[in-house]
Amino acid sequence: MGDPQQHKILLDEDEMPTRWYNVLADLPSPAPPVLHPGTGQPVGPEDLAPLFPMDLILQEVSTEQYVEIPPEVLDVYRLWRPSPLYRAHRLERALGTPARIYYKYEGVSPAGSHKPNTSVPQAFYNAKAGVRRLTTETGAGQWGTALAFACAQFDMECEIWQVRASYDQKPYRKIMMEVFGGTVHPSPSDLTEAGRTILARDPDSTGSLGIAISEAVEMAAQDPATNYALGSVLNHVLLHQTIIGEEALLQLAKIGETPDLLVGCTGGGSNFGGLAFPFLREKWAGRMSPTVRAVEPAACPSLTQGTYAYDFGDTLGMTPLMKMHTLGHDFVPDPIHAGGLRYHGMSPLISHLYETGEIEAVAKPQTECFAGGVLFARTEGIVPAPEPTHAIAAAVEEAQRCVETGEEKVILTALCGHGHLDLAAYDAYLAGDVTDHAFEDDDIQASVAEALSKLPTVV
Amino acid sequence: MGDPQQHKILLDEDEMPTRWYNVLADLPSPAPPVLHPGTGQPVGPEDLAPLFPMDLILQEVSTEQYVEIPPEVLDVYRLWRPSPLYRAHRLERALGTPARIYYKYEGVSPAGSHKPNTSVPQAFYNAKAGVRRLTTETGAGQWGTALAFACAQFDMECEIWQVRASYDQKPYRKIMMEVFGGTVHPSPSDLTEAGRTILARDPDSTGSLGIAISEAVEMAAQDPATNYALGSVLNHVLLHQTIIGEEALLQLAKIGETPDLLVGCTGGGSNFGGLAFPFLREKWAGRMSPTVRAVEPAACPSLTQGTYAYDFGDTLGMTPLMKMHTLGHDFVPDPIHAGGLRYHGMSPLISHLYETGEIEAVAKPQTECFAGGVLFARTEGIVPAPEPTHAIAAAVEEAQRCVETGEEKVILTALCGHGHLDLAAYDAYLAGDVTDHAFEDDDIQASVAEALSKLPTVV
Repeated sequence: MGDPQQHKILLDEDEMPTRWYNVLADLPSPAPPVLHPGTGQPVGPEDLAPLFPMDLILQEVSTEQYVEIPPEVLDVYRLWRPSPLYRAHRLERALGTPARIYYKYEGVSPAGSHKPNTSVPQAFYNAKAGVRRLTTETGAGQWGTALAFACAQFDMECEIWQVRASYDQKPYRKIMMEVFGGTVHPSPSDLTEAGRTILARDPDSTGSLGIAISEAVEMAAQDPATNYALGSVLNHVLLHQTIIGEEALLQLAKIGETPDLLVGCTGGGSNFGGLAFPFLREKWAGRMSPTVRAVEPAACPSLTQGTYAYDFGDTLGMTPLMKMHTLGHDFVPDPIHAGGLRYHGMSPLISHLYETGEIEAVAKPQTECFAGGVLFARTEGIVPAPEPTHAIAAAVEEAQRCVETGEEKVILTALCGHGHLDLAAYDAYLAGDVTDHAFEDDDIQASVAEALSKLPTVV
Repeated sequence: MGDPQQHKILLDEDEMPTRWYNVLADLPSPAPPVLHPGTGQPVGPEDLAPLFPMDLILQEVSTEQYVEIPPEVLDVYRLWRPSPLYRAHRLERALGTPARIYYKYEGVSPAGSHKPNTSVPQAFYNAKAGVRRLTTETGAGQWGTALAFACAQFDMECEIWQVRASYDQKPYRKIMMEVFGGTVHPSPSDLTEAGRTILARDPDSTGSLGIAISEAVEMAAQDPATNYALGSVLNHVLLHQTIIGEEALLQLAKIGETPDLLVGCTGGGSNFGGLAFPFLREKWAGRMSPTVRAVEPAACPSLTQGTYAYDFGDTLGMTPLMKMHTLGHDFVPDPIHAGGLRYHGMSPLISHLYETGEIEAVAKPQTECFAGGVLFARTEGIVPAPEPTHAIAAAVEEAQRCVETGEEKVILTALCGHGHLDLAAYDAYLAGDVTDHAFEDDDIQASVAEALSKLPTVV
């Protein structure tokens, strides 16, 4: 049917995978459990029940290799899935590389990113459990948009606390959430105890993801018909995202290609895990041997410069403790334009795979990423979101290496979203106003050590 | 391969049409010629040569039924073409209609609309003729984005005069043009005689499409290595857009569907003509008998309330005279959000087909269109640009009629672009700040008569 000279490698709707892949079933060594900060014991379903429906809690801890995707979720997925895999012929030509570069494009989704892959099943399982409203936090707004869209599909309300700084600076994202029927509050808000506490201290607070999480969790915890939804980091979120990698496997098989290198950007890890996990399964089964490389921002280098330790998932210390690569739960990264990558920690699953040598990681400064993004736009016609420009920069770097070595490497990139609502960041870059922050390694290590020293003694 | 229960009807890359369809070859009656305003005689190639390359001039007057698409153009087209045809299952369900609604989605292109279908061949033919730079005007910015992208593919410079009001109000569009390598000037500018003249009269002028055209044409006319490009209205532009309809024909054939109704929005007519012309060919050949309906904004109703007469294509009277449905070349429509539909005239080809009864037309107020757009977004997951919400509103109207009659009509809609850069318009709509302008019919007729009375006496 296909060959590598095509630009598009498409799947028909009836070729869409009907199962998510659960990497927990195949991990070469078990991942450390999530701990209750009060007891130091692994958390149980009852600890999570006030916020999540049982279906999602069970997925969080399941070790079944595959989870069937409900028909109701497949029916929504097919609005944009299977998503296209593209061969970057024009980018390759511009680089003069013998490498073959493929990109799996998730920007075709309603939110313009990979986020609806998990917002839709999360909304579905909540609706099935009788939940009438979901709350969440959002920074730049990708996740809030995805959840608003998903709630509209299952007749649920969606209430989103958006970090005040983004609420003011990126009005288009807020409008998109509202077009999909969501209600958006700037955070801190006076609707919650958490928000009022912050505002009492600082009436001009521009907020943070940590505060917004506190507000959304507080609202969900006090109403049985309201639950909370999270857009990355957790096992069930990464599980839902594996449809990306499952499709990419089918698409590459169609044209007889096997990847030598996978590159994906990592913030909380859901886009990267979604692409990489099915390929790791193939690798562990001896069917291929790709290098799998996470790309993180140099301004927030949790994998490459963080510490592998138990830490809180949020700034205020309200979550269970997760063993992960962390920069410390009170780390405040530079305000780089890739808002989705500004997270102090890393998904425990990705962290475990990095620690055990199954994947590697590099950090990229944002100017190099934007340069890659502009080159990509002018050759391939898609303006990437700032987040996946990190993967593009790493793919370009490898393709340029192939110019030297003559290797015809097959590179697979996760292009997890378009940048239509991030054009102000490109404006700043083109105007020369984007700079890189150079860390002294010691600074990070010291700040991580200090943050971890404040943890409950149970760990 | 397919059936109407699918959401997506896709074509493989090797199924992409390789010819554009030239409706001039099959018109039941000949269209009136374009006239030189000085002589009253039909314009010849030499009149157009200062602005356009000969390949495009010949396409403008060709009566060959098909024009081969150059391989270089096909190679760029395949970045996003064939574009998807979708069945609007979830919209149908929300309406409870027995109608089957399909939409051909052009928002997958680099510019997010149908415009690159013609910007790419225009850039190619100009590059082939040795032209190094293209100039153009743009209002809301769709066309400027499309031309900037196209010029980047053929190593040409692109200089765009954007109406000052849009330049200031819609900064994201300007940035997108710059990301694709274009240079954007607010119009009026001090770079041209035309701009300086206007600025001398009114230093605070917010510009108009007419002024921006004058600036772009002036720059092109004075440099042999610079040409001008137009994004709608002309025959060769509509020719290039027919790839939309050719693909849609193939896609509907795959699932065994024949349309009962085609609806598309009309500004200059290129999106509508691009979809409709191949279906009109099939109709004239007796292979189907769809109703073909143009949908225009009630605030700029050239077909439904304009006069069919010779008029200028621009406000300042610099173009040849075209016989078309016109509101008068000095008509200034309300500042509705569908900027791409704010044009005083209509493509001569569309006008001729309307006058001869081959197509019909309706006008829609923008509040009804936005209501359709929001319903579409919440059900189908795509936020439409304000322009195609006009087609959506007409499709919804017909589908609701089918609820009454029980007819299982097959409705084909042109969804010519996404609204990611038009979210401010949705914000205004959701806030209740979008209003409709009610015309007194007599007002329009009187203003058209006055405008036409100023024409050269040659017609």
